[in-house]
Amino acid sequence: MNQLQPSVKIIPLGGLEQIGMNITAFECDGSIIVVDCGLAFPSDEMLGIDSVIPDVTYLKENLDRIEAFVITHGHEDHIGALPYILKDVNVPIYATRLTMAIIDHKLEESNLLDVTERYIVNYGDVVELGCFDVEFIRTNHSIADAAALAIYTPAGIIVHTGDFKIDYTPVYGDAINLQRFGELGQMGVLALLSDSTNAMRQGNTMSERTVGKSFDKIFKENATSRIIVATFASNVDRVQQIINTAEKYGRKVCVDGRSMVTIINLALELGYMHMEEGTLIDIDEVKNYPDEKIVLICTGSQGEEMAALSRMAASIHRKISIQPGDTVIFSSNPIPGNEKPVSRVINELSMKGANVIFQDTHVSGHASSEDLKLIYALTNPRYAVPMHGEYRHRMANAEIAEDLGVAKNDIFILTSGDVLELNEEFGEVVDHVTAGGILVDGLGVGDVGNIVLRDRQMLAENGLIVIVMTLERFSNQVLAGPDIISRGFVYVRESEELMEEAADVVSNALYNCLDNGVSDWTKIKTEIKDSLSNFLWKKMKRNPVILPIIMEV
Amino acid sequence: MNQLQPSVKIIPLGGLEQIGMNITAFECDGSIIVVDCGLAFPSDEMLGIDSVIPDVTYLKENLDRIEAFVITHGHEDHIGALPYILKDVNVPIYATRLTMAIIDHKLEESNLLDVTERYIVNYGDVVELGCFDVEFIRTNHSIADAAALAIYTPAGIIVHTGDFKIDYTPVYGDAINLQRFGELGQMGVLALLSDSTNAMRQGNTMSERTVGKSFDKIFKENATSRIIVATFASNVDRVQQIINTAEKYGRKVCVDGRSMVTIINLALELGYMHMEEGTLIDIDEVKNYPDEKIVLICTGSQGEEMAALSRMAASIHRKISIQPGDTVIFSSNPIPGNEKPVSRVINELSMKGANVIFQDTHVSGHASSEDLKLIYALTNPRYAVPMHGEYRHRMANAEIAEDLGVAKNDIFILTSGDVLELNEEFGEVVDHVTAGGILVDGLGVGDVGNIVLRDRQMLAENGLIVIVMTLERFSNQVLAGPDIISRGFVYVRESEELMEEAADVVSNALYNCLDNGVSDWTKIKTEIKDSLSNFLWKKMKRNPVILPIIMEV
Repeated sequence: MNQLQPSVKIIPLGGLEQIGMNITAFECDGSIIVVDCGLAFPSDEMLGIDSVIPDVTYLKENLDRIEAFVITHGHEDHIGALPYILKDVNVPIYATRLTMAIIDHKLEESNLLDVTERYIVNYGDVVELGCFDVEFIRTNHSIADAAALAIYTPAGIIVHTGDFKIDYTPVYGDAINLQRFGELGQMGVLALLSDSTNAMRQGNTMSERTVGKSFDKIFKENATSRIIVATFASNVDRVQQIINTAEKYGRKVCVDGRSMVTIINLALELGYMHMEEGTLIDIDEVKNYPDEKIVLICTGSQGEEMAALSRMAASIHRKISIQPGDTVIFSSNPIPGNEKPVSRVINELSMKGANVIFQDTHVSGHASSEDLKLIYALTNPRYAVPMHGEYRHRMANAEIAEDLGVAKNDIFILTSGDVLELNEEFGEVVDHVTAGGILVDGLGVGDVGNIVLRDRQMLAENGLIVIVMTLERFSNQVLAGPDIISRGFVYVRESEELMEEAADVVSNALYNCLDNGVSDWTKIKTEIKDSLSNFLWKKMKRNPVILPIIMEV
Repeated sequence: MNQLQPSVKIIPLGGLEQIGMNITAFECDGSIIVVDCGLAFPSDEMLGIDSVIPDVTYLKENLDRIEAFVITHGHEDHIGALPYILKDVNVPIYATRLTMAIIDHKLEESNLLDVTERYIVNYGDVVELGCFDVEFIRTNHSIADAAALAIYTPAGIIVHTGDFKIDYTPVYGDAINLQRFGELGQMGVLALLSDSTNAMRQGNTMSERTVGKSFDKIFKENATSRIIVATFASNVDRVQQIINTAEKYGRKVCVDGRSMVTIINLALELGYMHMEEGTLIDIDEVKNYPDEKIVLICTGSQGEEMAALSRMAASIHRKISIQPGDTVIFSSNPIPGNEKPVSRVINELSMKGANVIFQDTHVSGHASSEDLKLIYALTNPRYAVPMHGEYRHRMANAEIAEDLGVAKNDIFILTSGDVLELNEEFGEVVDHVTAGGILVDGLGVGDVGNIVLRDRQMLAENGLIVIVMTLERFSNQVLAGPDIISRGFVYVRESEELMEEAADVVSNALYNCLDNGVSDWTKIKTEIKDSLSNFLWKKMKRNPVILPIIMEV
């Protein structure tokens, strides 16, 4: 690195291997800014885990240099970890208006609202943060008020797209400010950090407005049915289009699902949505209207077990029962991994006689390959850093960058914790800092790690056998037991013979030890465990967790 | 039901709610035949379960009337339960040649080969089984030697398509015998039982042969790379096409993965596959050839954890390491639910520098909607019984039947155990018998039920706390403990303070009971459990399984 020229460091602290935790530090001279602070949802093998938050050890170690959190938009994978991280890293937050409203709601729930400095930023505003100037640029996404960032540094301009799409005809507000991307390109962009989610998709991502036409068609074709639409809670524009169609066809709208009610109230309050007076009705009023006058908008489009639609499908919703003839629209695509729960809900709805529609009522919020090409062409960056997506998606983004003229050596597919140092002359990964995910289980943050997860996995696969006995101190005489208690192993009442044999194996192992003068309890426990383990594997090819406990009296 | 006319009963015993367990009994006068005997793979919530087999209580109760198993093709979901079910229901098996070879291999592994009567049937053969005559009709599918059945009964002809597609240009053998379907239609078909898997797909399913062209293109474009192809072990025609392409481009072929080696050996031996001498090499010989001379065909196209490709991707394969520049082809689509593991493998391969291709190298083995229309048009059945598929797929098949002229009342979407009685005059579900799935865990069949699964779920989500203490008989004096042992709950060394508080809560609960003269141990245990449970919920919003154990001395 040429020490004469200033340089900037880019440090992703999460969100690369574990999709979701978007949080990236930018460092220059003495200043650090942090873009986004998201959480990830647990993968299947993280048993019992509620969410995953980024490990911000690096931020804690450099606390005095951090100027702010700069947030691109209000999705969980960009703001969800704020309530956790602010406890240790309490710096000001900068975000657009709707984004901040959603953050405020979160902070209020965590009693952090009063202790956190927050600044609402408008598109076009430039915020001075230490050696950085950060400009918010209008983009489009599946939530309103999304922003890209132009980060002006002594080493050059960095453009961070955030999650974005190019929508020339958005439902709310204006199209992405492509002119500004062009102007920045003219000024010279050092690095472009861009959204890779849909880099493998051909062509352009369709406008959100196209979905409105599909709703119109479906409402017309199902004029006599009750209509139920499941979609993402935060997609305010989608909900707006459903409401528009409902109003056009003279239907009342009822909203169900906690997260959806929250966000719609925020959006209405701030003017990001609008509806005629009297359109919205309470769920208890639904029964007062005929089917053809009702639209129910609800959560559960991903088959989430406790969401409104899933509860209706499983007949455990307290207010709404699916009835034959209901039209149910999935205004969503299953997120990878959710295909099976979504199928289950569709099957349950079908069995109840509902007509399930899941075509043409969803478009993505992320730029496809042709859209990315446009952004590369406009900004013409010296370096490309594909962000936000699985490794293969970021690879596809890298290929696009190369096609659009970025040199192969100037494209960086980073790993969490990589410290990428850049200026006009050099770009390289110069260091690696602590980064990654911390598991959240209930109120516990970080107290569940790999050992605990492995135990849970073992218990889940094979169940548990506890062997407990009381021995007399010094003499090692058996005063009680050994008793065997099992959970999740076999249905004991139907396997009495097996459990008796197992008890014999355990007794034999114990008395064998004692007869041979073994007095080391660790050894006795190991002997019992191994004997039973061998017996069960031979007998039934199973491998339960065996927990021998010796009490001393 | 008109008692004067003979009737036939159709009883699906599995495979309708739990996709996979294809097994259907047909009953007429004193005779029963059973079509297929498949197993299902466990769903996500069936923790630790290896497979699910059908509950054949009904067959066991009517053993003396069962004439045979009639098998349509050699996939696991149609033959996999035979080794379990034959132990109780040992009747002759009828199947085509390759199907029987696969069954034989299974029975040999279970020491059932010598005790089971087996008859190989050719297409066109009619087998007399009690009051049934069963004709095997050539179809196409993703495994060779698939058959549809024409079941001649005193009540009329029933056509059962099995799993099928219409392939006018198959890789091996001839196209489906559409003429025979037409002839049967002319004779008059009482009921058509047909494959619903792809009933929701528009158009026609493409010929297997189209995949060959894609392989040719990919081999040409990657002439200097080592090529690795993952596909389904049983898709002999697919493997044949990969071998053909390898031979064309002068590459040696190595096969990896136990199930794939087994089935390829069977297919070669029986003449369902062919290759030039010297094409096949052992995995240990791979290193003797340059990359551009090698094709590796392997299992793992579904991201299965221990399959060959997954082990290569995870760097735990003992013989093959992925190297930059390798071309890896997924000749498959992810089966719903496998999207995430497949993505994980693709990402791992990409990170190692492999070029991953997963387009245009797979076609389905199941008929699409237009294909189904053709079969309905040819057979023109009185009744339609959609089989094989989720509820929504069978619904879609039912809609096709209605479009093709079957009266809505004459279409039956059955539930496992339904007894559908049919003749020319009446068709209705007249009874319901025991049916459904039995869980297999290791060697245990049916010893894991809902209670055990619920315990495993609880243990998996929250882990376990065992509380153990020794009390003196009569006096109830505490001689040892209470001790707390946990597994899968928290990482104890980092949560010492919490565990100490928990110990206090337990002690207080115990001594509180004893001080108040509570001598009922069940009551003491409940008291301890509740106190600790409340404490942990308040403290950390978690709900571990708590297991209090009292030993008596």
